[in-house]
Amino acid sequence: MSNTFGNRLRLTTWGESHGAAIGGVIDGFPSGFRIDNAMIDSDLRRRATGNLPSASSRKETDRVEFLSGLTDGMTLGTPIAFMIRNSDCRSGDYEEFKDVFRPSHADYTYQAKYGLRDWRGGGRASARETAVRVVAGAMARQWLMEHGVTVSAFTSRVGKVSMDGSYTDYELDAARLTRFGTLDRDMDDCVEEYLASLRSVGDTVGGTATCVVRGLKAGVGEPLYDKLSARLAYAVMSIPAAKGFDYGVGFDGIDMTGLEQNDAFVWRDGEVHTLTNRSGGIQGGISNGEDICFRVVFKPIPSIAMEQSTVNATGDEVRLQVRGRHDVTVFPRVLPVVEAMAALTVMDLML
Amino acid sequence: MSNTFGNRLRLTTWGESHGAAIGGVIDGFPSGFRIDNAMIDSDLRRRATGNLPSASSRKETDRVEFLSGLTDGMTLGTPIAFMIRNSDCRSGDYEEFKDVFRPSHADYTYQAKYGLRDWRGGGRASARETAVRVVAGAMARQWLMEHGVTVSAFTSRVGKVSMDGSYTDYELDAARLTRFGTLDRDMDDCVEEYLASLRSVGDTVGGTATCVVRGLKAGVGEPLYDKLSARLAYAVMSIPAAKGFDYGVGFDGIDMTGLEQNDAFVWRDGEVHTLTNRSGGIQGGISNGEDICFRVVFKPIPSIAMEQSTVNATGDEVRLQVRGRHDVTVFPRVLPVVEAMAALTVMDLML
Amino acid sequence: MSNTFGNRLRLTTWGESHGAAIGGVIDGFPSGFRIDNAMIDSDLRRRATGNLPSASSRKETDRVEFLSGLTDGMTLGTPIAFMIRNSDCRSGDYEEFKDVFRPSHADYTYQAKYGLRDWRGGGRASARETAVRVVAGAMARQWLMEHGVTVSAFTSRVGKVSMDGSYTDYELDAARLTRFGTLDRDMDDCVEEYLASLRSVGDTVGGTATCVVRGLKAGVGEPLYDKLSARLAYAVMSIPAAKGFDYGVGFDGIDMTGLEQNDAFVWRDGEVHTLTNRSGGIQGGISNGEDICFRVVFKPIPSIAMEQSTVNATGDEVRLQVRGRHDVTVFPRVLPVVEAMAALTVMDLML
Amino acid sequence: MSNTFGNRLRLTTWGESHGAAIGGVIDGFPSGFRIDNAMIDSDLRRRATGNLPSASSRKETDRVEFLSGLTDGMTLGTPIAFMIRNSDCRSGDYEEFKDVFRPSHADYTYQAKYGLRDWRGGGRASARETAVRVVAGAMARQWLMEHGVTVSAFTSRVGKVSMDGSYTDYELDAARLTRFGTLDRDMDDCVEEYLASLRSVGDTVGGTATCVVRGLKAGVGEPLYDKLSARLAYAVMSIPAAKGFDYGVGFDGIDMTGLEQNDAFVWRDGEVHTLTNRSGGIQGGISNGEDICFRVVFKPIPSIAMEQSTVNATGDEVRLQVRGRHDVTVFPRVLPVVEAMAALTVMDLML
Repeated sequence: MSNTFGNRLRLTTWGESHGAAIGGVIDGFPSGFRIDNAMIDSDLRRRATGNLPSASSRKETDRVEFLSGLTDGMTLGTPIAFMIRNSDCRSGDYEEFKDVFRPSHADYTYQAKYGLRDWRGGGRASARETAVRVVAGAMARQWLMEHGVTVSAFTSRVGKVSMDGSYTDYELDAARLTRFGTLDRDMDDCVEEYLASLRSVGDTVGGTATCVVRGLKAGVGEPLYDKLSARLAYAVMSIPAAKGFDYGVGFDGIDMTGLEQNDAFVWRDGEVHTLTNRSGGIQGGISNGEDICFRVVFKPIPSIAMEQSTVNATGDEVRLQVRGRHDVTVFPRVLPVVEAMAALTVMDLML
Repeated sequence: MSNTFGNRLRLTTWGESHGAAIGGVIDGFPSGFRIDNAMIDSDLRRRATGNLPSASSRKETDRVEFLSGLTDGMTLGTPIAFMIRNSDCRSGDYEEFKDVFRPSHADYTYQAKYGLRDWRGGGRASARETAVRVVAGAMARQWLMEHGVTVSAFTSRVGKVSMDGSYTDYELDAARLTRFGTLDRDMDDCVEEYLASLRSVGDTVGGTATCVVRGLKAGVGEPLYDKLSARLAYAVMSIPAAKGFDYGVGFDGIDMTGLEQNDAFVWRDGEVHTLTNRSGGIQGGISNGEDICFRVVFKPIPSIAMEQSTVNATGDEVRLQVRGRHDVTVFPRVLPVVEAMAALTVMDLML
Repeated sequence: MSNTFGNRLRLTTWGESHGAAIGGVIDGFPSGFRIDNAMIDSDLRRRATGNLPSASSRKETDRVEFLSGLTDGMTLGTPIAFMIRNSDCRSGDYEEFKDVFRPSHADYTYQAKYGLRDWRGGGRASARETAVRVVAGAMARQWLMEHGVTVSAFTSRVGKVSMDGSYTDYELDAARLTRFGTLDRDMDDCVEEYLASLRSVGDTVGGTATCVVRGLKAGVGEPLYDKLSARLAYAVMSIPAAKGFDYGVGFDGIDMTGLEQNDAFVWRDGEVHTLTNRSGGIQGGISNGEDICFRVVFKPIPSIAMEQSTVNATGDEVRLQVRGRHDVTVFPRVLPVVEAMAALTVMDLML
Repeated sequence: MSNTFGNRLRLTTWGESHGAAIGGVIDGFPSGFRIDNAMIDSDLRRRATGNLPSASSRKETDRVEFLSGLTDGMTLGTPIAFMIRNSDCRSGDYEEFKDVFRPSHADYTYQAKYGLRDWRGGGRASARETAVRVVAGAMARQWLMEHGVTVSAFTSRVGKVSMDGSYTDYELDAARLTRFGTLDRDMDDCVEEYLASLRSVGDTVGGTATCVVRGLKAGVGEPLYDKLSARLAYAVMSIPAAKGFDYGVGFDGIDMTGLEQNDAFVWRDGEVHTLTNRSGGIQGGISNGEDICFRVVFKPIPSIAMEQSTVNATGDEVRLQVRGRHDVTVFPRVLPVVEAMAALTVMDLML
């Protein structure tokens, strides 16, 4: 396994979804920095319950417990260890899948690799581990904000429902106010209707998150191999359910010719800028001072409420029906996770 | 800079496009393995001149010179150093761009980051460095073949021209025989016509390469962060001009619901398999025994033959016209590079 | 800071001596291995209270709490997180040294590097953190034992008191039964008397630990830079108070000529062996199948009970008198720490 | 194998002693730094021929050839690749040892680990590879000098001949003028006489090098594991023939009590300093602003001119007589290697 992320800023994470706790250790965070717990709690809440007003949420929010590295809320430069206790652990729900490989889950591959696995709720492969990334990411975003850099993700597509126009037509903060993390209330209404229809039949769907890193100066990224684009791709492709990554015009630009994709340089405010930003703020793997803009595509949540056929560990073909409340899509809960991975990556490359 | 790739198998590369040479050092390659130089030469030729019969090529093929790590063609377990001399170096072509930032090239970002740059032919940012990856990749592919694993890339789309159907309808080896690396001669003819029209106006175009890793057993990949998917994304996003990555149905599956994307497990030949392969052979970041299948999208080559506006280092807006012979698209020359990065990644994770 | 140790087996540690807890995360430990907690507890006890019968000890033994990576005592292959709560935290003892730099402690250098420090009990620089190494080391030693390798450290010298003869004249296990970790009860008595005389005047002393790794096959170690000798040196020099390392005849062999130091090869039991072992089991940085034998020299504990002159953070010269119970020497409590670092290093290189 | 040294400044080396060449790649060296080739050549000469006037030397000096990373002698920030051709390669001298394991050489352990080896002149295990370290080290020393830091090694003991007094009684530069790298001409004469007597009987001897890093500010070193002391130990223990490392009073201070070893803090010139430097400039693994002072002990060169008994790969006991010119001791040729490893370590930790 490889549970450490980053080079100069290193996050090491641990924990199974139904074990005692999940947690992480951050090494390399500069000393003398004051941490704002409210921002961490806010991101944990977004991950746990989405953008719903917390009052209406039945789920209790995760609580982070810091174990080292801070004195009076100030970083010491020593490793910052923290954990989140697992509370709502109904392992019983999973008992019947103990020997069954759920389709498009990691059950079979973990069994094949490790010979045994913690079958309760996905174990280490559960999306629950992303809460740890969110804690570290919120701290990285605080540090970036002090350096003039913001990281904002939003829902740009859910199944058949797409955003109209460019993100530059909207306020990025709007993603925190809409129910599904879109920038546009109309689109959000469409998403709601669409997801309701899928929920009614027990199906699920994926989509794309777009993430914008704003305020990053030219010069961040380490060619050849630690290109900013390569490191961002690596970072977000480690999020459960991520199936693809692109930046700038990316896959949507396949039909555009060189003339159409090239970004002309201009002088603006005494600095070099580009007229357009089809490069997504990255050229030669290094930031060029424009908005860094990338997308991540997520697959549908594989836990559908319909009966599926699969096999078990002893060679029988079996029918499987996943029970319990499951989300219809990863949005908007995945957005703080995308922001966290982007923030950790950018901060690591800036240090 | 970060010029070392991999953990257990490590490739360190060096060289500017117009310096004395480019080269690399491979550390961690197992001892006692016989290297087939013909396969390396063949891949170097594909990268340098495409699939053209070498006779018709005006370009001389790169020649690799091994400096250490081999005795009688057999690996010693010690670092394998090699270099390729730079021959065809007309720096003069670039003299006029010495202080000009070519649009969508890495000129400006290198200058911003390093304060100076080798302006002759792109320097370290030139795609010429990919020849080094190809040498190491060819050696990795040899090792993988001895372990029953093949790595094959092909051109799945060029601008508006797409492949019909699935790659499973074709022979993967066909990509080495067609002019542009497609699997289908008809498609290849369309590409030829399409590129001819672009060349006539001095424009360029991008597209997608698809890569298939076949024969890989279940269990390869290191969650959480070194997921096979994350490592492949990182590997190919470091190739010049790469703008995106996806695997399985990826971006094309956004409209598919969970029911449509889930891959049902079945027993076949005493092993667990999936009926479909929308997961692209990876679940939970670990190979599941099916074909690993991923795509890379490349942008158009930014060196178009049309006049463009840009700025120079001293703050003037200037008009720029790139001269010299330039390709219209990265295909098929990028295919051995994609194969190389995939092979190095998979071998690294297998060791 | 750099709080991760190892490459394939990675231990990440955290915690200040007077914070909530100290702990660690082990990544890369093979799955399906049963952990024996008794061995961990035994090593923790040796570190906390020495070889004294626990009944007579006033100190409560540290208790390790596992948070992830195990199911029914069996490793899952996922990260193993654990922590030890800090209990006996009389920060008050340290309040008066808050702004004072204790001689030959890390107070000044931490302040110089990080700008602030946790002054309570040494913070991150406290030897308390070695308890975390001991937990991980005990697990590594269990794994090594299953692979036929034992790791044993003993006290070979304390100040003026040295061991007679070679370790091969004694049972290595004797070190766990004597009061100061020597192999020889007579030497142990001398040490006791010697330390008593130092304690009576409030002084302290150092000495050497010798560590023997037995049963390691030829072939372990990764030249050029990760030579077994280099990695062992790196490992033990990170232990607080370590001032030097040597292996084989080391510093004691300076007067010996080549003829006297060379180890002649012989065949024994169908294997290549050496007649003598002045090489300490390592040649060219790789184990040669003989006992790996190395020493670590430790300085006296700097917390002496005599008044010393020093300075404080605001520029005044002050007199300092360290209070509280402090050990007279690091022996025998440092022995399980030396074993832990050796075991982690060897297991890392064997994986 | 592990042929890359360093984290932020990374040196990757390659080459067998009797292959085409040896060389290295330096990654992470800051851009815009002017390299002085004379200093590199001077260090290469010291390594190749000792301090002898080059006229009297029969050996031709190694010549370094830069292949990338420089433009007009200025670093580009890109990887700096260089090589040294192997010239004087009389492989014939080694033919008879092809299957014989020379005592206290790495022949047997390489064979055991890799299954085959380049038997000509030691292959990768040959001390010839240290020339590559010297090139990189000379560049690091130049960078350090611009940051006010000097690195100087000298011969402090050869077999029975020791230096009188402390290094602070001498000029460190004197080591470059004496025949054997000592600081004291009288000691040097004794060494000469002593070595002559050993040479006459075909024997060899080891000794200690002492290295002083002067001008390093407080705050360099990364606890817990990358302590400055641990990193220096790791660095020098990778030098062929190194058997031990200590810093400050080290092994020589075993008899000193805490009162005798503690370094009292004082204010001097508005800075915190220590009255004495028994800590060797490192406390808690971090530099404290005093001279960094450490020793390395080297074993005798194992190629003695006397007949020895050993075994060959096929199980026979054989008599072996090493022929050819061999040095009697590693001094003074090892001194620039020690300086190089120290300089690379310190620069890496400063970046």
